Amino acid sequence: MAIVVQKFGGSSVANAERIKRVARRVVETQQAGNQVVVIVSAMGDSTDDLIDLAKEITDKPKAREMDMLLATGEQVSIALLAMAIDKLGYPVLSLTGPQVGILTEHVHGKAKILDVNPERLQQELDNGNIIIVAGFQGATEDGEITTLGRGGSDTTAVAIAAALKADVCEIFTDVDGVYTADPRIVPKAHKLQRITYDEMLELASLGAQVLHPRSVELGKEYGVPIHVRSSFNHNPGTLVQEAVDSMEKELMVSGVAYDLNVAKIGLFDVPDKPGVAKMLFKALAEKRINVDMIIQSAMRNDRNDIAFTVVKDDLDTAVAVVEAVKEAIGAGGLSYDANLAKVSIVGAGMVSRPGVAAMMFETMAEEGINIEMIATSEIKVSCVVRADDAKRAVQAIHKSFELEGDAPVNSEGFAS
Amino acid sequence: MAIVVQKFGGSSVANAERIKRVARRVVETQQAGNQVVVIVSAMGDSTDDLIDLAKEITDKPKAREMDMLLATGEQVSIALLAMAIDKLGYPVLSLTGPQVGILTEHVHGKAKILDVNPERLQQELDNGNIIIVAGFQGATEDGEITTLGRGGSDTTAVAIAAALKADVCEIFTDVDGVYTADPRIVPKAHKLQRITYDEMLELASLGAQVLHPRSVELGKEYGVPIHVRSSFNHNPGTLVQEAVDSMEKELMVSGVAYDLNVAKIGLFDVPDKPGVAKMLFKALAEKRINVDMIIQSAMRNDRNDIAFTVVKDDLDTAVAVVEAVKEAIGAGGLSYDANLAKVSIVGAGMVSRPGVAAMMFETMAEEGINIEMIATSEIKVSCVVRADDAKRAVQAIHKSFELEGDAPVNSEGFAS
Repeated sequence: MAIVVQKFGGSSVANAERIKRVARRVVETQQAGNQVVVIVSAMGDSTDDLIDLAKEITDKPKAREMDMLLATGEQVSIALLAMAIDKLGYPVLSLTGPQVGILTEHVHGKAKILDVNPERLQQELDNGNIIIVAGFQGATEDGEITTLGRGGSDTTAVAIAAALKADVCEIFTDVDGVYTADPRIVPKAHKLQRITYDEMLELASLGAQVLHPRSVELGKEYGVPIHVRSSFNHNPGTLVQEAVDSMEKELMVSGVAYDLNVAKIGLFDVPDKPGVAKMLFKALAEKRINVDMIIQSAMRNDRNDIAFTVVKDDLDTAVAVVEAVKEAIGAGGLSYDANLAKVSIVGAGMVSRPGVAAMMFETMAEEGINIEMIATSEIKVSCVVRADDAKRAVQAIHKSFELEGDAPVNSEGFAS
Repeated sequence: MAIVVQKFGGSSVANAERIKRVARRVVETQQAGNQVVVIVSAMGDSTDDLIDLAKEITDKPKAREMDMLLATGEQVSIALLAMAIDKLGYPVLSLTGPQVGILTEHVHGKAKILDVNPERLQQELDNGNIIIVAGFQGATEDGEITTLGRGGSDTTAVAIAAALKADVCEIFTDVDGVYTADPRIVPKAHKLQRITYDEMLELASLGAQVLHPRSVELGKEYGVPIHVRSSFNHNPGTLVQEAVDSMEKELMVSGVAYDLNVAKIGLFDVPDKPGVAKMLFKALAEKRINVDMIIQSAMRNDRNDIAFTVVKDDLDTAVAVVEAVKEAIGAGGLSYDANLAKVSIVGAGMVSRPGVAAMMFETMAEEGINIEMIATSEIKVSCVVRADDAKRAVQAIHKSFELEGDAPVNSEGFAS
């Protein structure tokens, strides 16, 4: 019997009617001859409501208590979905993250999953139960409740799929799959049938909010096929899997992504000596700030400029860290800017085709868009631009790489 | 250092402002030189909101999933209260029922506490922490989340006070303490300074909703002094403790209680043979229906009438049980009535004073109120009357036993 893991996001369980619809879909999957584990997020905006409640109490809630608070959102969803499936007459059981044995590191707000104990899950599946698991949450070894950060339910789903050696992890969302660009910006964007983990990872990291990057990493690590599909219809969505030959030849560029959550910090006149970068980025890492792009300019008179990007929420903390180490590393000055965006092209086929980056830069130049930073990898090229220019850049690039299609696009948009 | 356990009900933590007020009160208690454990209920009407949500899904939610759902209410409260205390600058930690080691039987919706593990609590107290515990919830040995039923937070508080051998368990409510009668009905009712566990137990069972009966039982069993007091002021409330000599002499009757949640089932023409009552009440017990009063009428022609009362919510189930065993016990007929109330007088001094019951019946007769059932114990006399007559009965009895006082009465009423 195949094991299918299904994940439904907050908008799929936003109210009683939607929960009942999810219940029918889950039962359908089981009746088709599968063992089914379902991961759900908190209902609609309920996580935001809880955050607002905390803000009424304090502007700096303790991360531990924030996890205690937010973990309730998913617990409400699993109970309600289990009730809905029970009402349809099928054996069902809801389990919280801690109950299911999702062991995380002892970090609050963005804990990483260390292990998933598949024993209880497998046993309950073998007893004929549909299992509903709270996404986004886990527990440390000593029973502290942790959360995995935004998008954590995707990670829960793939981690459980990996632990159970599931045949597929279906991520249900309010779009049909992964598109060549955000259809709200590029109306002619079309759905990709398949995409590699690496491409998806780049797209996910780059702001195409269909799948959380950590879930894709996990999927790649454990070889879990991830099927991104719509909760509103039964159309096949986009399958995220290892590269197969035919895929590589399909497209030079799979998609164009953009991310408005970009802030840049620049350090001027940094002495060109060993250990400077280490000191700076270690200090940032200690505050758990994820640094995205890092650019070190060519040396002039033994002094460098270093610029890097972080998500906007981390900007204040990052600036404080940089201020604190500025003296020690002997930097001449500091600047920052929160009004930026990153526009990227992603494609596994890029590596064997020269000139892709140049074509992107040319398009930007033709549009009169200034590029502030550039970063490349084997399968992507990213440019930091002014936030105001991002939309125009995406449209122009999508067009110049001939990604336009006529696939019907879900009107509810691209982001999940 | 004294250990003080404080319990704040849903109305005391109904919004951010109230939570902040509770935080200040808790900190005050710690700063006065005590170790403090705080038990909180779900915010305001949030439990009812969760129940409504479940009702949108199904009219018969599984009890297990209902517990999963409802346990979130208290988890929200503890996180927010911990944030508020942290903001005031004091070390604090919130813990769910399962985390604190509140072990319950494997029953959903009204589980009984089997044990409380004081180890973690004592350790965190000794580390200087204020501890906030979710009331109303626990876990079975195999980690299933359970709830203790309405009023369960009182029980949590007293159970934790017992496990920690606390000096006092303070139950904060929106009234000043325990009154001789419901001030909404009897404006001249006055606050009792002290009351015995047994009296409180009778009052609690009889519908004076200040303290949950199970919490009083636990308090009596472990000798935990329970201080019922107002969360709106610092006045001493009512101390519930073992009888002391002076108390017994104070009053013949301590209070008049009423309970509108009464339904009666009558069985006619039941053969007068051994085992009939056992069969009937065992069948009811198996469905976990609490039977309150039981009256068996004098035998006529080897046949009896049996009448008993249950809470209204249990009436349908109870009637079904009785229908099922009616044949087996050879009963002639069955009747039921959900439109009743119970009016009771309670007093430890009653036992040594004859004529108390007679005086109550006389008052009822003078008011023209028909008594449908009577039950007595050493410290109480209860009468079942028509629901419409209950208020008038309470007023007349309170007056005839000369319980009227001039103590200021909180305008927010008697019930918590």
